[in-house]
Amino acid sequence: MNADVAVIGTGVMGSNLARNLAGQEGLRVALYDLDVDRARAVAANHPEAEFLVATSPAELAGMLQAPRVAILMVNAGAATDAAIGSIAEVFAPGDIIVDGGNSHFTDTIARGRRLAETGIEFVGVGISGGEVGALEGPSLMVGGSDAAWERLRPLLTPIAARAEVPGSVEPVPCVAHIGTDGAGHFVKMVHNGIEYADMQLIAEACTILRDGLGLTPAEISAVLTEWNAGELESYLIEVTAEVFAHTDAATGRPFVDIVADAAGAKGTGAWTAQSGLDLGVPVPTIAEAVFARSLSQAADLRAQGEALGGPAPADTASADTAPADRLGEAIETVRRALYMGKILAYVQGFDEIAAGAREHGWDISLGELASIWRAGCIIRARLLNRIVAAYDAQPDLSSLLAADDVRQSLEADQAALRSTVGDAVAAGIAVPALASALAYVDGLRTPRSSAAIIQAQRDFFGSHTYGRVDRPGVFHTLWSGDRSEVEV
Amino acid sequence: MNADVAVIGTGVMGSNLARNLAGQEGLRVALYDLDVDRARAVAANHPEAEFLVATSPAELAGMLQAPRVAILMVNAGAATDAAIGSIAEVFAPGDIIVDGGNSHFTDTIARGRRLAETGIEFVGVGISGGEVGALEGPSLMVGGSDAAWERLRPLLTPIAARAEVPGSVEPVPCVAHIGTDGAGHFVKMVHNGIEYADMQLIAEACTILRDGLGLTPAEISAVLTEWNAGELESYLIEVTAEVFAHTDAATGRPFVDIVADAAGAKGTGAWTAQSGLDLGVPVPTIAEAVFARSLSQAADLRAQGEALGGPAPADTASADTAPADRLGEAIETVRRALYMGKILAYVQGFDEIAAGAREHGWDISLGELASIWRAGCIIRARLLNRIVAAYDAQPDLSSLLAADDVRQSLEADQAALRSTVGDAVAAGIAVPALASALAYVDGLRTPRSSAAIIQAQRDFFGSHTYGRVDRPGVFHTLWSGDRSEVEV
Repeated sequence: MNADVAVIGTGVMGSNLARNLAGQEGLRVALYDLDVDRARAVAANHPEAEFLVATSPAELAGMLQAPRVAILMVNAGAATDAAIGSIAEVFAPGDIIVDGGNSHFTDTIARGRRLAETGIEFVGVGISGGEVGALEGPSLMVGGSDAAWERLRPLLTPIAARAEVPGSVEPVPCVAHIGTDGAGHFVKMVHNGIEYADMQLIAEACTILRDGLGLTPAEISAVLTEWNAGELESYLIEVTAEVFAHTDAATGRPFVDIVADAAGAKGTGAWTAQSGLDLGVPVPTIAEAVFARSLSQAADLRAQGEALGGPAPADTASADTAPADRLGEAIETVRRALYMGKILAYVQGFDEIAAGAREHGWDISLGELASIWRAGCIIRARLLNRIVAAYDAQPDLSSLLAADDVRQSLEADQAALRSTVGDAVAAGIAVPALASALAYVDGLRTPRSSAAIIQAQRDFFGSHTYGRVDRPGVFHTLWSGDRSEVEV
Repeated sequence: MNADVAVIGTGVMGSNLARNLAGQEGLRVALYDLDVDRARAVAANHPEAEFLVATSPAELAGMLQAPRVAILMVNAGAATDAAIGSIAEVFAPGDIIVDGGNSHFTDTIARGRRLAETGIEFVGVGISGGEVGALEGPSLMVGGSDAAWERLRPLLTPIAARAEVPGSVEPVPCVAHIGTDGAGHFVKMVHNGIEYADMQLIAEACTILRDGLGLTPAEISAVLTEWNAGELESYLIEVTAEVFAHTDAATGRPFVDIVADAAGAKGTGAWTAQSGLDLGVPVPTIAEAVFARSLSQAADLRAQGEALGGPAPADTASADTAPADRLGEAIETVRRALYMGKILAYVQGFDEIAAGAREHGWDISLGELASIWRAGCIIRARLLNRIVAAYDAQPDLSSLLAADDVRQSLEADQAALRSTVGDAVAAGIAVPALASALAYVDGLRTPRSSAAIIQAQRDFFGSHTYGRVDRPGVFHTLWSGDRSEVEV
């Protein structure tokens, strides 16, 4: 019996993706897992899927129609290398191995180079949407050759999420060929970096509502639900509203109050910040979001820090006493600050993607990328429609900052971000991401950056030279000599 | 004729270090450079040094007394690998190759492993102090085996910087055995990361003095000179005072006004932030300093950003109108904010070193490390005496934050940092590092971090689980089910 595609690795993500594939008309899916019993259990539990289960790579290869397609859904790292190795032994030139895991894009590039010698195509696909997305429709970011994409397109298009898009009758499938080799995993990484920033910004905004404005968790949930009906509409706002509405059954307390305040991380946010540092692209708000998580985990440091004095915002929360209209105004200011922070997280992320594309020779359509993040993804949000429209209007935008629409938002909401950060700073509420977003804007706005002072310092102690504002050239001042200037 | 030590690579850093070595009593130095003429020119220009010049690695090996010591002063990367390869061919077991360049510590670890097979010792030495330091006395951070350190100690001790230390009759040589393999290059990297943060903090403080308080460059230089007589005393404050005092001869304008406001970077700051991300140690203020430089270089982004509205601080500068005593108070507030920011940069850097030591099995004495940064280094500062004293009093400090002395400063100056950031935010002055330092403190202080919200979001969309505040265990809420809680 022949299968059209194989899924290798039948954990939650793999089995869900396999079920999604098997649910498509006329598609037969083979499963393979080092733990054959696990693959058999998936097949047994989902008889409707009519899975074929292979007990060895060779048997799997025999089941698949050429050119074969195998989608690896195994852990990034050594497990991925092992799976590639065992499949490559039984695949033939022209067959395709797809890595659907969260691999680092540089690993994907290296693996593709190694496999190129065998004639087997290697494709790195960023898959967003978690377990539910894998089953019901993920967003798929495909990195690989044009030929591989032509082969994969009919397999992946039907299983992708579909975005209902204003002005479009048909929903748009959230899958795209991003570029060659590591491009898919690269943009998935940055997607996650934006997600880190967005989550941190939302958490900071909610903390201001709670500790600064004195709202209860239930009230915050109501505010978020209201926000979710407007320009902030997004999956993450929806999730946060749910979380704030939830009551812990064991204690009757708000759920958010019984959750330990230490946030985990799985690496992609850190990778995004590290890649930004490699590329020389400022992504400070994403980095602050990652560091905020590591700070939350640093129990020793926090034990020392808690003893430090300073303002205690909860003592001065104002909800009970503020007139309703002033409270409403204060909440609206926080909403606008959050929206502006969110836009800036996207600006930074898209700049990193543009720089990565230049560095690695990927021809990435940023508008198409934004369009496939509108469903299936964790960061799906109404804002993405504006980003798509901006790139539709000007496909060669040098940055989202150059889009009139984005600029207008930054004009309109800057005062709200500024006063929100100022109030949080005064109240002693930690707002690393909001403050970083504002500093980023102020760094962009300034006609004279304090970097001139730094470059002057560098020339003084390290002869690092400097440019002049009044003429081209590279200059050095003889600081330990007569302090005259030389052109170098 | 026999030489005691070789210097390989006779660029500015290499020739200066060689001259420093040759100036020591009874020490004969051999030079080798791929460009033999360059080595010959150094010898010819410095006859007092009585250099031996080798024309090949083999000749060099023949000149050196066993166990041989060669110090590489070549560019990090491929040039270093090439030099190691050519020297290893002619060296014998027990000989020592020292890499005195700015290599990434992971490269140093890998090179040491490869050389271990040959029996040749590999030592990575972080050298701080730039060209002048190399000649007159650098700070030397040695990574390698105990045996190699015993051999190198008498060579390196006399050429190191000497710190005049309160309470000590003899100046203290700034050289130490930091740990095995990459330890020396690791701490040098973090040294540079702290340097990035310190420079950025100083630049922000000076920008507040200028654009916020309306001081002229000459007045700022005077303020810095005054600061340099107090607890802020440091090489970087001294340098900045010089820079602000300098007048551009061509235009008669303040030098800081004719320098292009784009700050370069050579990688070690980015490495420090990347390593902090790898280790899960929050070093946000260091990262913000790196990103501030990349933002300053982003001409396209800045061209877009300049058009954004917002407060223009220079319009509201108050020096002409503020009463002198209030201006003096305002300047003192900025000074205290800067000092607190500086302390926090050190807290973050030392935490990263402690985490790196745990990760790589290095037994690093943080007090000794602080002691050898007190002279020769770019970050030499009076503050280091306090850090040395803190570790003297409690060698097993879990963090500088746990030192009473440091904590007292953070208590005393927190209000100044808070109001300085608040004023800069209101005035539209970009203060990414100061704001990040404050957010770090507020993140440490809070008894309930907003990370609880993030972990709740993560459990909702990714089943990432959470801890509870009221009992141990790992939990998950069945969000798409009946929302009951399960222990996992």
